Amino acid sequence: MSFYSQVKRFLVGRPIATKHAHHERLPKRTALPIFASDALSSTAYATEEIMRVFMVASLAYLHFTFEVALVISGLIFLVAFSYYQTIHAYPQGGGSYIVSRDNLGVRYGQLAGAALMTDYILTVSVSISAGVLAIVSLVPSLSSYIVPMGVAAIGLLTIANLRGAKESGVVFAIPTYSFVVLMLGMIGWGLTLPAPPVPQSIAHAEHQLVDQFWMTAAFLTIAFKAFSSGCAALTGIEAISDGAGAFKEPTARNASATLLIMATLLAAMFVGASFIGNKFHIIPMELHQAGYKTVLAQVCQQVFPVTTAFGTFYFNALQVATTLILILAANTAYADFPRLCSFIARDGFLPRQLASLGDRLVFQNGILFLSLSAMALLVKFGGDTHLLIPLYSVGVFVSFTLSQAGMFARARKLKLGGWKPWVSFFGAIITAILAIVLLVSKWKEGAWLVPIALSILLGVFIGIRRHYDYLARELEVEPTDTVPKVRMTVILLVPRLHKGILQAIAYAESLSEDVRAIHVTLDAKSVAKIKEDWVRFGEEIPLVILESPFRSLVDPVTAYIDQTIAETPDQFITVIVPEAVPKRWYHRFLHNNVAIALKLALGTRKNVVITNVRYFLK
Amino acid sequence: MSFYSQVKRFLVGRPIATKHAHHERLPKRTALPIFASDALSSTAYATEEIMRVFMVASLAYLHFTFEVALVISGLIFLVAFSYYQTIHAYPQGGGSYIVSRDNLGVRYGQLAGAALMTDYILTVSVSISAGVLAIVSLVPSLSSYIVPMGVAAIGLLTIANLRGAKESGVVFAIPTYSFVVLMLGMIGWGLTLPAPPVPQSIAHAEHQLVDQFWMTAAFLTIAFKAFSSGCAALTGIEAISDGAGAFKEPTARNASATLLIMATLLAAMFVGASFIGNKFHIIPMELHQAGYKTVLAQVCQQVFPVTTAFGTFYFNALQVATTLILILAANTAYADFPRLCSFIARDGFLPRQLASLGDRLVFQNGILFLSLSAMALLVKFGGDTHLLIPLYSVGVFVSFTLSQAGMFARARKLKLGGWKPWVSFFGAIITAILAIVLLVSKWKEGAWLVPIALSILLGVFIGIRRHYDYLARELEVEPTDTVPKVRMTVILLVPRLHKGILQAIAYAESLSEDVRAIHVTLDAKSVAKIKEDWVRFGEEIPLVILESPFRSLVDPVTAYIDQTIAETPDQFITVIVPEAVPKRWYHRFLHNNVAIALKLALGTRKNVVITNVRYFLK
Repeated sequence: MSFYSQVKRFLVGRPIATKHAHHERLPKRTALPIFASDALSSTAYATEEIMRVFMVASLAYLHFTFEVALVISGLIFLVAFSYYQTIHAYPQGGGSYIVSRDNLGVRYGQLAGAALMTDYILTVSVSISAGVLAIVSLVPSLSSYIVPMGVAAIGLLTIANLRGAKESGVVFAIPTYSFVVLMLGMIGWGLTLPAPPVPQSIAHAEHQLVDQFWMTAAFLTIAFKAFSSGCAALTGIEAISDGAGAFKEPTARNASATLLIMATLLAAMFVGASFIGNKFHIIPMELHQAGYKTVLAQVCQQVFPVTTAFGTFYFNALQVATTLILILAANTAYADFPRLCSFIARDGFLPRQLASLGDRLVFQNGILFLSLSAMALLVKFGGDTHLLIPLYSVGVFVSFTLSQAGMFARARKLKLGGWKPWVSFFGAIITAILAIVLLVSKWKEGAWLVPIALSILLGVFIGIRRHYDYLARELEVEPTDTVPKVRMTVILLVPRLHKGILQAIAYAESLSEDVRAIHVTLDAKSVAKIKEDWVRFGEEIPLVILESPFRSLVDPVTAYIDQTIAETPDQFITVIVPEAVPKRWYHRFLHNNVAIALKLALGTRKNVVITNVRYFLK
Repeated sequence: MSFYSQVKRFLVGRPIATKHAHHERLPKRTALPIFASDALSSTAYATEEIMRVFMVASLAYLHFTFEVALVISGLIFLVAFSYYQTIHAYPQGGGSYIVSRDNLGVRYGQLAGAALMTDYILTVSVSISAGVLAIVSLVPSLSSYIVPMGVAAIGLLTIANLRGAKESGVVFAIPTYSFVVLMLGMIGWGLTLPAPPVPQSIAHAEHQLVDQFWMTAAFLTIAFKAFSSGCAALTGIEAISDGAGAFKEPTARNASATLLIMATLLAAMFVGASFIGNKFHIIPMELHQAGYKTVLAQVCQQVFPVTTAFGTFYFNALQVATTLILILAANTAYADFPRLCSFIARDGFLPRQLASLGDRLVFQNGILFLSLSAMALLVKFGGDTHLLIPLYSVGVFVSFTLSQAGMFARARKLKLGGWKPWVSFFGAIITAILAIVLLVSKWKEGAWLVPIALSILLGVFIGIRRHYDYLARELEVEPTDTVPKVRMTVILLVPRLHKGILQAIAYAESLSEDVRAIHVTLDAKSVAKIKEDWVRFGEEIPLVILESPFRSLVDPVTAYIDQTIAETPDQFITVIVPEAVPKRWYHRFLHNNVAIALKLALGTRKNVVITNVRYFLK
């Protein structure tokens, strides 16, 4: 086993065939947790996002959280319906990138691709930071370790994905269904309880506001901001249409039914949690407040007081399930990001080698890029979900807009009538407005990063494509081009004569009639020996002895090759470097691979090919 | 220019041909500063080392420093005389490694090699830390930055040596001769001055001691310890005999004359500085004492009070010259360490590739290893010369002992009569005793590192040699061995048909009759195109289309090769991967070099050779 393999195996474990996993067709009950974990997990933070906007203006506004959530749930169904159409139009999977590229044109496709790339990075940052906050709500003493815990969690996800952990349905099913059941159970039980009295602080805030305050322009602005923040609930909703191809036949019907189930669960959990949150007068806490708890954790403690054993159990179970579903949500980005890159690379906007997604090296580079970017964001924003979400939402809404606009454009092109395309149109308008509102209102808090990241990515896409286009023109074969006939000179490096060299001699002789053996004398003693040995095995091959006054191996060989090129400039020169392959990787340091140094030294010589012929040591 | 070259040029600058510099024959006046900087610079700390030992016992002992220095100067001439003989026996240069190996046997040679390797590392640590202390004596406010300054200085030396700074004689001559002139001037002027009265502290200490105190065993022990510490003055004395080959003809005469001059200067400066130090009742300061000054700096301030402009000038000049000669001393290790490694590698005790010293990659690895080890020691011992010197001296005395014992053994073997060999014998006994005394008395302060380092190095030497011996036996050609006749199959990877491929086709056809072109379909669209194109250029070569359901390039090719091996196990398979060589290095990321991934994947298949045929992009 090679050194590289050993190191890799040590770091990322024995390779497991993952790539086949995705090609099993999934039934709805298995597909739902796999594709819905991202969307459903956003209920862990969406309610809190609305409340935080209201809270800044006045605690009196908090009780509008439910109404805002209700309106957002309308938007959930609107967007879901647009993706419902996408599933039927692209039953093999139509992500925002493909839909925009095919229907709006290359430039919009590139924008969607860039937006999606940033989305996947932020999915990891946001989900992991929210997952860490769920744990901190459970164990307040961990609150000093939010960033290290987040970085460690991303590190574990990275290793798991580099190993190629097999994504079994069960791994997704248990946390996802647990989360759904615990959320709905909490909401259901909460509905039966009597509302507590309004706390002093809220009552006081309400008292300060004049009558009819909610009709003022100021309130409407705040409510709209709260609405746009709460739209974080929509993130992940596109997953089913992206991966529709993975569903059992009839694909489109199964996928769209699952989408409907997901949207319903999402809306129910989001609106329900917001309602119960209002009912129990939950006030969000600041991240660095002592004993920080997420809104969801506070709701749970109100519904099931931890003074009872059952309440403690429920609270623990919900926090753990929340963390797990958020980790799963982050994990979906690890499967989707390299796949998205391969789509983009196929169109020539990213390095072409990324298209061969099945090659582990390519896949692993994608994973590392994703992890490092997500870690950087997590560290920069101190693991505060609330600060990361605006960035996330802007990107998500850009891709929603492009996807829905693409579906509308498609309907126009295909002259599809009826009201359905107008749902996409309407959805596109709303998500575009939301993207702009978020971008402007959260500009200073970090949203400026989004247009910069998108511009850089677009620049990279365009630059790469331009390079490839240029090459295609340059390298295009012309009618006058023919395959040249070449003469070949083979140069065989012979450090000593041993068994390993015999095979290299055989190889050299099979390549050409014109073979020359080269021995560089680092040690005067060796010359007589090699001349004597050579007579026996290499009689047909002339042996050239090169002096090396300065004890360099590379310089004399380079000089000899340059001389050969000068004598016969048109021929190919193949330099054969016998290479020992030791049994143990660390023995490699005891064997010189001159080929590497020669490749560096001869980098600019055309028509020179440097080849290792290996011999295996026992 | 390749990516690698660009990065290297950025880091270490444009390559300069250094290797020729060493091959100019030097006159004495140029050779003296080059080879003597190491030895002469040890006067910067040797007096202080004696004083520190005495001081721990009683300030009253301090005035014996001169006597001890006088005895050590006798040892200087003794050892110098032994090396004088070495120069005549090995006029082309005989370091401790070669002398011991040739005359005492391989095991002693290995021990000398290991001792010398540690010596060179410690030459860097000790000289740089002493140089930093000279600067700190000049600018006391820098005393908090001793370690960072030392690390930075080693970093600068590393870069200078990686660049291959040309060692011009002037660079060595100016600081070395300045240091000698300033030292001798200070000593000479100091002799003319009247002695100041004995300070209270010393007088008090003398008062406490009973009469005849210096006859006691306790005093003798301390005096012997002081003697062994002061022997730090001997470090570097072997340099001329190591590098005798660099002297002008008549080599031996010039080299030995230079050795005599060096020994005289060294003894004069060392004994003189110790005498003046005693005369002015200098007491060494602790490193972390406020306003720390080296003993030499204190002496200078006594002889030339800084209240005068001349005194200030002299003080500044001496401190700067001291720092510079110490940096030069460190720099000599950078030339000698890789050369020593190449001697050892030629005997098979270090990786064989280190023998080709003329190859920059090899030379640079040696430099980096030296720098990192020296930095580690400097940091570990906080840049305190006094703590580093015992380690240094132990190694130096081990190699002195082996070298002198080797010269004695040589004289016995060659049956040389007379008294001269007995000088070496006597010198070997003394230096052996000194090595043991230092090792035992400084064991806890860090001397234990020396035997551990030596044992590890010896283990490495023996292990490496054993591996090479084993290989030599395994790979030895036997009478029945012949060069096999092999059949060759060539597999040419064709991603698209373009101009670059034409050359690869020509190359493939020149290798063998049995050429197959392989196209892996990552994109169904491309198949028709390539089939059409292929008819024109590759008609004689069968085109094999490989499906890749999981979008991998490597897997289908590997599978095809395995199948070909299974069909015809005896033949060689050459896989040709056309490789784009872009004009700008960063364009490299846009081009897939499948050869690397294929080499990893096919690492264990014998008889498979993977070759890049490059095409150059404009």
